[in-house]
Amino acid sequence: MNQHAERTAVQVRQGAVAPPNFDAYIPLDTDTVADRLSAYSAVAGQLGGAPADWRVREVGDGNLNFVYIVEGPEGSVCAKQALPYVRLVGESWPLPLSRAFYEHAALIRQAEDAGQDAVPEVHIHDGPQALTVMENLAGHVIWRGALIERQRHDTAAIVLGRFCADTLFRSSDLALDPALKKREVALFSGNDALCRISEDLIFTDPYHDHEMNAVTPGTEDAVAEMRADTVWRVAIQEWKWAFMTRSESMLHGDLHSGSVMVTPPGGGERVRVIDPEFAFYGPMGFDLGAVLANLWLNAGAQPGWGEGWQDQQNWVLDQGGRFWDAFAARFTDLWRTERRGEAMVDRVLRDADEAALEAMLARIQNDALGFAGAKMARRIVGLAGVADLRTIPEMDARAACEIRALRLVGHLVKEAAAIGSVAAATDMARDLLRPRGAAT
Amino acid sequence: MNQHAERTAVQVRQGAVAPPNFDAYIPLDTDTVADRLSAYSAVAGQLGGAPADWRVREVGDGNLNFVYIVEGPEGSVCAKQALPYVRLVGESWPLPLSRAFYEHAALIRQAEDAGQDAVPEVHIHDGPQALTVMENLAGHVIWRGALIERQRHDTAAIVLGRFCADTLFRSSDLALDPALKKREVALFSGNDALCRISEDLIFTDPYHDHEMNAVTPGTEDAVAEMRADTVWRVAIQEWKWAFMTRSESMLHGDLHSGSVMVTPPGGGERVRVIDPEFAFYGPMGFDLGAVLANLWLNAGAQPGWGEGWQDQQNWVLDQGGRFWDAFAARFTDLWRTERRGEAMVDRVLRDADEAALEAMLARIQNDALGFAGAKMARRIVGLAGVADLRTIPEMDARAACEIRALRLVGHLVKEAAAIGSVAAATDMARDLLRPRGAAT
Repeated sequence: MNQHAERTAVQVRQGAVAPPNFDAYIPLDTDTVADRLSAYSAVAGQLGGAPADWRVREVGDGNLNFVYIVEGPEGSVCAKQALPYVRLVGESWPLPLSRAFYEHAALIRQAEDAGQDAVPEVHIHDGPQALTVMENLAGHVIWRGALIERQRHDTAAIVLGRFCADTLFRSSDLALDPALKKREVALFSGNDALCRISEDLIFTDPYHDHEMNAVTPGTEDAVAEMRADTVWRVAIQEWKWAFMTRSESMLHGDLHSGSVMVTPPGGGERVRVIDPEFAFYGPMGFDLGAVLANLWLNAGAQPGWGEGWQDQQNWVLDQGGRFWDAFAARFTDLWRTERRGEAMVDRVLRDADEAALEAMLARIQNDALGFAGAKMARRIVGLAGVADLRTIPEMDARAACEIRALRLVGHLVKEAAAIGSVAAATDMARDLLRPRGAAT
Repeated sequence: MNQHAERTAVQVRQGAVAPPNFDAYIPLDTDTVADRLSAYSAVAGQLGGAPADWRVREVGDGNLNFVYIVEGPEGSVCAKQALPYVRLVGESWPLPLSRAFYEHAALIRQAEDAGQDAVPEVHIHDGPQALTVMENLAGHVIWRGALIERQRHDTAAIVLGRFCADTLFRSSDLALDPALKKREVALFSGNDALCRISEDLIFTDPYHDHEMNAVTPGTEDAVAEMRADTVWRVAIQEWKWAFMTRSESMLHGDLHSGSVMVTPPGGGERVRVIDPEFAFYGPMGFDLGAVLANLWLNAGAQPGWGEGWQDQQNWVLDQGGRFWDAFAARFTDLWRTERRGEAMVDRVLRDADEAALEAMLARIQNDALGFAGAKMARRIVGLAGVADLRTIPEMDARAACEIRALRLVGHLVKEAAAIGSVAAATDMARDLLRPRGAAT
């Protein structure tokens, strides 16, 4: 039994059990960050010098929060503060500060379950200020941007597959004592406002004429076809039911390629997962589907980015298979060595243990395909479309890419069980995501 | 929109949000009950007269608690107090007093969702004493006993079907605002000790050589066959996974025929559901399966009770079908009139609404069959076997009944999806639960 397993076996889960009171909350801006951070001795020590020497930049390119990089004579940190509203939309869309609490709770659990290397290290979390000061991932860029630039990070898919296996397995009834797992479910059930965003933006709004959708000119017919398809609409509501009711594991909850940071590709490249503010207990396949969806969206966008698209599309599609294989291999390893929860217990399974593993991986794979489809559609039709598609300069090319991607989505959402594997879905994607007449 | 729907729409759920402190807890006995109850004016008023006039009887025939009937000059009440251990086993098996809190929380929700007639009315709940004083169901008997005596309550199956639809639908994401539903999940997640009993006794212990199992002499081979069957063991662990991870609805959690009380059969017969201390958020099919399981166990026991068994067995088996049909009809009605949650939303489903209902009922029915099998096996092989079988006087006849019932269980647990309907399972039960050579 490794040290991790010992710890989970004795039920250690760190941190507070409920969000704090936010009455004393004061939002920061670039002028006030240095002064605030100087109050945290651990942070001041990290930066060195005096607050007047610190350089502060706001770098948040996400949709929800403000993020500051603070550089001092001896080091740098990243300070992330939640706002009482959605940054992308403004004060008209309020969003609770408690998301900073859940993000911190998830960050420390992910570090525990997947290793400190997997996520930014937390220096301090100031609960009432909805503020987390953490390691500045200097030298890292957002993976989505790197993918759009056709950089090839060969380890990213594998690191993410292992990350998913570690976090999903170790937070589930396969690993945790059932009383502790139920307490964890209860803890994250308070993150309902962030869940509601997913419930609306992924599973609901794209399927009717909602004001926040953004339909690319030229794709109207494909979108109308999707919305006219009764099988599709029943299926998406069934995936929503699964999302809302299946408390299997602590999910990252928003594991797209914009939540992954990487150093330059090649020897020694590093991969980190950030921004788990959507964390909650849901179906394992949801996080897996998010990774697959964002790879397939990028693959689908490649023809829109001109010459060389085939080679890059093939590379990106291969990453989906490598991601799943890394997940399955690591999950298998954990199944065989750390299955100390009360689900799938060895005293019942005994020699049927590998058969049960196979059945579970098949179920998770099926879910991953369906959720991948759901996540793709949302990024094509809904609010917050992906840059991979939205920044294709030629509108006709962009529309053609989106229409092809939507065709893949239909199969994934409606026929996940029949497709049956990431490998089969990858073949399907290779076929559907290229312009008609182009060779694979 | 009826009044109920209005209330759930504005998110009213009564009662405290966490169990109290039990430091001041004092267990009652028949000598101290009257004095204690005299302190609650609502109860004293109900009984009339002075405590010295009150007659106290302990009547608990369940496995967990003490239950007192208190009769005064003007009326009577039922006082139920949790003990810090399992009554059936003794102080060696501790069990938290908080189960009284969850039972009360469930009772008031069931009254809200299914009507006050469905459950005993609560007069007072004394949280720190783990004590609930409620309506005395005078003139009622436990349905299991009535079934063993071959009484025929024609409305019981129908009342229970409606009860399940009302409580399961109205506590789910089909009806509740998602934030409220998540709070409800969190609330009941504290009832982990009672969930653990189900996890162990239903899904684990019967499948290995556990000291608390009670295997009837003569059934050893059938039990050994069950435990040798790898498909069976994988399947039961998959049902356990569903039980542990699928937070669909607030379940009663122990809805066997001993949790149902009835007045004498015939015109005006009344049916009440009691004892929801196992309440938690789980899969809808679990409560439905519990009802079916206990009907099928009784049907399976009939040949052991001699002459007239065929007619009674047929009647009992018919009740399973009537129960499911009543559930499905009521669920359909609620689906069409009270679907105000964020699952299966009308703005997406639109004209696919009935197709989605059909798919959901099929899924619930499938689950009900699998859980029925799981619940049956537990009552044949495990701790707390059912009186229907255990009191058959002839040991050979009893063993024969149990072996036949176990054969049905195997089909239910392993092939629920293939069987597909309660009607088909009933036909199967009619075939498998009669002695070889006997006509149906």
